[in-house]
Amino acid sequence: MINKENLTQHISQQFNVELEEVRSHLLAMGGLVEKQVNDAVIALIDADSGLAQQVREIDDQINQMERNIDEECVRILARRQPAASDLRLIISISKSVIDLERIGDEATKIAKRAILLCEEGEAPRGYVEVRHIGDQVRKMVQDALDAFARFDADLALSVAQYDKVVDREYKTALRELVTFMMEDPRSISRVLNIIWALRSLERIGDHARNIAELVIYLVRGTDVKHLGLTRMQEEVQGSKKNS
Amino acid sequence: MINKENLTQHISQQFNVELEEVRSHLLAMGGLVEKQVNDAVIALIDADSGLAQQVREIDDQINQMERNIDEECVRILARRQPAASDLRLIISISKSVIDLERIGDEATKIAKRAILLCEEGEAPRGYVEVRHIGDQVRKMVQDALDAFARFDADLALSVAQYDKVVDREYKTALRELVTFMMEDPRSISRVLNIIWALRSLERIGDHARNIAELVIYLVRGTDVKHLGLTRMQEEVQGSKKNS
Repeated sequence: MINKENLTQHISQQFNVELEEVRSHLLAMGGLVEKQVNDAVIALIDADSGLAQQVREIDDQINQMERNIDEECVRILARRQPAASDLRLIISISKSVIDLERIGDEATKIAKRAILLCEEGEAPRGYVEVRHIGDQVRKMVQDALDAFARFDADLALSVAQYDKVVDREYKTALRELVTFMMEDPRSISRVLNIIWALRSLERIGDHARNIAELVIYLVRGTDVKHLGLTRMQEEVQGSKKNS
Repeated sequence: MINKENLTQHISQQFNVELEEVRSHLLAMGGLVEKQVNDAVIALIDADSGLAQQVREIDDQINQMERNIDEECVRILARRQPAASDLRLIISISKSVIDLERIGDEATKIAKRAILLCEEGEAPRGYVEVRHIGDQVRKMVQDALDAFARFDADLALSVAQYDKVVDREYKTALRELVTFMMEDPRSISRVLNIIWALRSLERIGDHARNIAELVIYLVRGTDVKHLGLTRMQEEVQGSKKNS
């Protein structure tokens, strides 16, 4: 028997299903993007142009996922008119998807550099740094997505904090590679491929940090963008005390 | 006398005022960001570290504008539950603001390169390219914002199309600068500053293109992201014929 109460409950259950679905689509996209970053780094280190080509082809799939998730978010906003934490969830998803798509773009750029290095011959330096910083930013992406999956503001905070470490190591690597190029100018073009790949990795770290900030917004309700790490930490740990 | 009809009209007028306000805040932020790009390029070309410093300081203001506009969008979504073209307007604004903030970031990066060039001494090459590509992307940002202000999908389309030209010229400039570095390795560090600045300009072009795509979405109701220029043109000009 259908009465008004049942109907309301039914609608709200259906709404929860939709929210759960769009969230799981975001996480699935995240999983694929994470794999793209991993594969792009391996393709570059192992000079595997086949794997690099595969990364470039899968990018279309990621773009399509972005379009689908965007559509789902707009549909939910239009039909369900979510409020409070539901609205924050939709906003966080529709912004995270932009960062995930750009991480995918950067993975594709790394794959392009891998292909160029296969053609031009391998660079005399920089692979250790690519592997190391690659591992770091892949972990950041993974943790940012885990934080999203588990609504874990503390893990998100640690991702944002870790971005500083990556930035520092990226700068050090860059300085060393510039010095090396000055000593061996014939390698400039090949070393520059490594530098562009490192640059992409550093950008991937920035995007992971953006996603982490959105998780904090989702869980704590505060926009921590541009606030700086100290204020961010206060927001995450301060509001934990209050809750 | 207040009756229900008046009240509805009153609410909807108030709603229109809010939409107009947030749109004008976006355009004001856009105007400031455009000035930042201009000033950063001038600072680099004229080796004006004072102007570069000013660009870096104004970045905080832009970040604050992003936070404020974000807040306005969330408030409108929560209280007004906009639908159809009003919803598209809020979505376009809340996404454009991300691109504007990143354009501001890239302007700051150019300003940092300007300061480094003041310290290390000017680069032997690349200023012509910075000026030229700088003019092009500033025009793109300006046109994307004008398209937003006037709901002009055709102008937005031309911005997206122009991005191809910038990408091509950026690649040509890069090739020439790499060749130059190989001939004059002592200049590597200084020329790299120019290369990073050019890279930032190319990214600014990408962000202007993103904003242009959002204008097309706003005006035509179709998400043209990742569709490619041919499909984008069909969407803009095809739906014009239908309307």
